[in-house]
Amino acid sequence: MSCSLDILGDRWTLLVVRDLMLGRSRFKDFVASPEGIPTNILSDRLERLVTNGIAEQVPLADGAKRFGYRLTDKGRALRPVLESVRDWGLAWEPGTRVLMKPGDA
Amino acid sequence: MSCSLDILGDRWTLLVVRDLMLGRSRFKDFVASPEGIPTNILSDRLERLVTNGIAEQVPLADGAKRFGYRLTDKGRALRPVLESVRDWGLAWEPGTRVLMKPGDA
Repeated sequence: MSCSLDILGDRWTLLVVRDLMLGRSRFKDFVASPEGIPTNILSDRLERLVTNGIAEQVPLADGAKRFGYRLTDKGRALRPVLESVRDWGLAWEPGTRVLMKPGDA
Repeated sequence: MSCSLDILGDRWTLLVVRDLMLGRSRFKDFVASPEGIPTNILSDRLERLVTNGIAEQVPLADGAKRFGYRLTDKGRALRPVLESVRDWGLAWEPGTRVLMKPGDA
């Protein structure tokens, strides 16, 4: 369990995973999330997610040479983690906003 | 969800919650965990857990005026979060050690 937490034990990491799970792909889409992730932290976390095999780079469909990100199988397997955090927050933390509904993506 | 992550988005926080879930109560028991949490971080995380209503101080049964910690209902409700992190680690991270078995405490 401590190995998993080395990768995941960071609020920004899980928020980026949530954005990926919602189908967001481009750097600017992550930046636009309401939590306001700083761009230097976003770059770092995306790099860590790729290094750890949770996300991968994909070419964007816009014809330019830019790329986006998507979850790998290992990354998609994090859904129960995000759901359990969301459920706990809804039950115990007043003011929790649901940014990932049960049926999303 | 982001409110929950403000509290939980830290590997040491979840490791301390796991120790509490295993029935550990005293400062020195947390220090003895194999992850080797630094004592200044441990003090800080225990204080945050109490402030956020996840843990509470309890008198120790040894007659001295010292105290230990235990989970509140809100803290015990984190079990599915820890279990989902553990399950993901076992499935996807080689070398994950099981420090909380399904039937523990």
